[in-house]
Amino acid sequence: MRTVYLNGAFVAESNATVSIFDRGLLFADAVYEVFSVLDGQIIDHAPHMARLKRSLAEMTIDHDVGAADWETVLATLIERNALEEGTIYLQISRGAADRDFLFPPAGTVPTVFAFTQARNLVANPMAERGMRILTRPDRRWGRRDIKTVQLLYASMMKMDAKAAGVDDVWLVEGDVITEGTSQNACIITPAGHLVTRNLGDHILPGVTRRTLIGIAQASGVTVEERPFTIAEAQGAAEAFVTSATLFVMPVVQIDGLAVGDGAPGVHTMALRKAYIDHARATG
Amino acid sequence: MRTVYLNGAFVAESNATVSIFDRGLLFADAVYEVFSVLDGQIIDHAPHMARLKRSLAEMTIDHDVGAADWETVLATLIERNALEEGTIYLQISRGAADRDFLFPPAGTVPTVFAFTQARNLVANPMAERGMRILTRPDRRWGRRDIKTVQLLYASMMKMDAKAAGVDDVWLVEGDVITEGTSQNACIITPAGHLVTRNLGDHILPGVTRRTLIGIAQASGVTVEERPFTIAEAQGAAEAFVTSATLFVMPVVQIDGLAVGDGAPGVHTMALRKAYIDHARATG
Repeated sequence: MRTVYLNGAFVAESNATVSIFDRGLLFADAVYEVFSVLDGQIIDHAPHMARLKRSLAEMTIDHDVGAADWETVLATLIERNALEEGTIYLQISRGAADRDFLFPPAGTVPTVFAFTQARNLVANPMAERGMRILTRPDRRWGRRDIKTVQLLYASMMKMDAKAAGVDDVWLVEGDVITEGTSQNACIITPAGHLVTRNLGDHILPGVTRRTLIGIAQASGVTVEERPFTIAEAQGAAEAFVTSATLFVMPVVQIDGLAVGDGAPGVHTMALRKAYIDHARATG
Repeated sequence: MRTVYLNGAFVAESNATVSIFDRGLLFADAVYEVFSVLDGQIIDHAPHMARLKRSLAEMTIDHDVGAADWETVLATLIERNALEEGTIYLQISRGAADRDFLFPPAGTVPTVFAFTQARNLVANPMAERGMRILTRPDRRWGRRDIKTVQLLYASMMKMDAKAAGVDDVWLVEGDVITEGTSQNACIITPAGHLVTRNLGDHILPGVTRRTLIGIAQASGVTVEERPFTIAEAQGAAEAFVTSATLFVMPVVQIDGLAVGDGAPGVHTMALRKAYIDHARATG
């Protein structure tokens, strides 16, 4: 039985409930973050909090991230749940109010909660064999830069991938890749450049993506933030995804075609190691 | 204090809570219906239930609408809350499970709830003055035919309209109108034809839209279900929206331009009356 955080208190997970009038439940009117924990330490705490602050501002949800002292809350969750490796999920909705599309009056108290999930992040067997990916039309809403709980399409596409016997889906507009269902998509060109979609409202500004770009550039890799097609990805030397929970994860097959020699790429695996080393060093 | 329905029981609204792990809250993984109540009777009960059944099937949420005996539940809510005129909101999510994009195992029990909202539907002052509308890009997800709780964009657009001092927004792709934020969009051409967008995954198959098309056709009006542009709507003889709660509501201004003579149209008001008469007769 986990201890979770809900509206200022630490409670048993079975007692953690919210009103049926919560706008997160009625309108998907909520934003979230997922933090990874390694060795009992949070990775990339500051940029996740900065993104949360941006999501709240874009949605005009009135929650002061600094005043809430999330650092202490997350540390307490790690301690009470003896979390060595896994994730912490944090959600903030606009709060509960009688149902109306219009936002409730100022002063409505946001609903905040957070919970831990223990899981192996470093010793992920998928890093050995690589991910197989299908592409599917990107039919999500237009503000993917805001990390809201409108995750139904991503969820459906993961089910599609599972039904097809592969690991995940990359979403495409026309033949241009936007991102994975819950990861940013990256390739390494035959010339050795790291290519990933430029930021904008079509993709989430990934925290791991950003950290990894810094790591890659510091090691002399040329990084191009630009659109790329399915065909370019299939013809790339290597491919991978970045996310808070997958770190850097090799992609070895796209729509049935092998990427490179069909095994996790050497540059990808070096970047994965470099990212994990960085995470452990700065956690 | 209302009595609401939650997972098989009738409870005080302040006691109606769901787990923070409910997928409706974490993934917007839930569908809903809104029923209007006139004279204590539900309008269009059967087609709303049919659409709910379809939404559940599209989402593969395992809830048997018939076995749940919603008819008795809704009648009990009306009685216990002495609801003469207003709405009943009914939501079904995929249920609570530890957070994972993949759907939880078969046997996970959906979360179901319903609550009443008393309000004047017939004596709506907006029917006298007409709605003023702005158009905005339709940036919702691609499966608008499924009535999910992914309502954030609609909610944001209603706030946009409020900030601009108008009543609501019609959503457009290019210059083609899809529908309103929570209504179907209709116009009456100079030739007297009723035009409304053809069904497909770009709009919700409105129950009131369907009923009204039948009423209009029975009274000899030619109905065209096809795309129409902002310019065609602005140049129309009349414009209106249909929804379960607005019934038939005149639109008198689109992006600052008056429709017709800028007052609620005579055909629109006749259709509104015919719809309300039909609703009262069949409730």
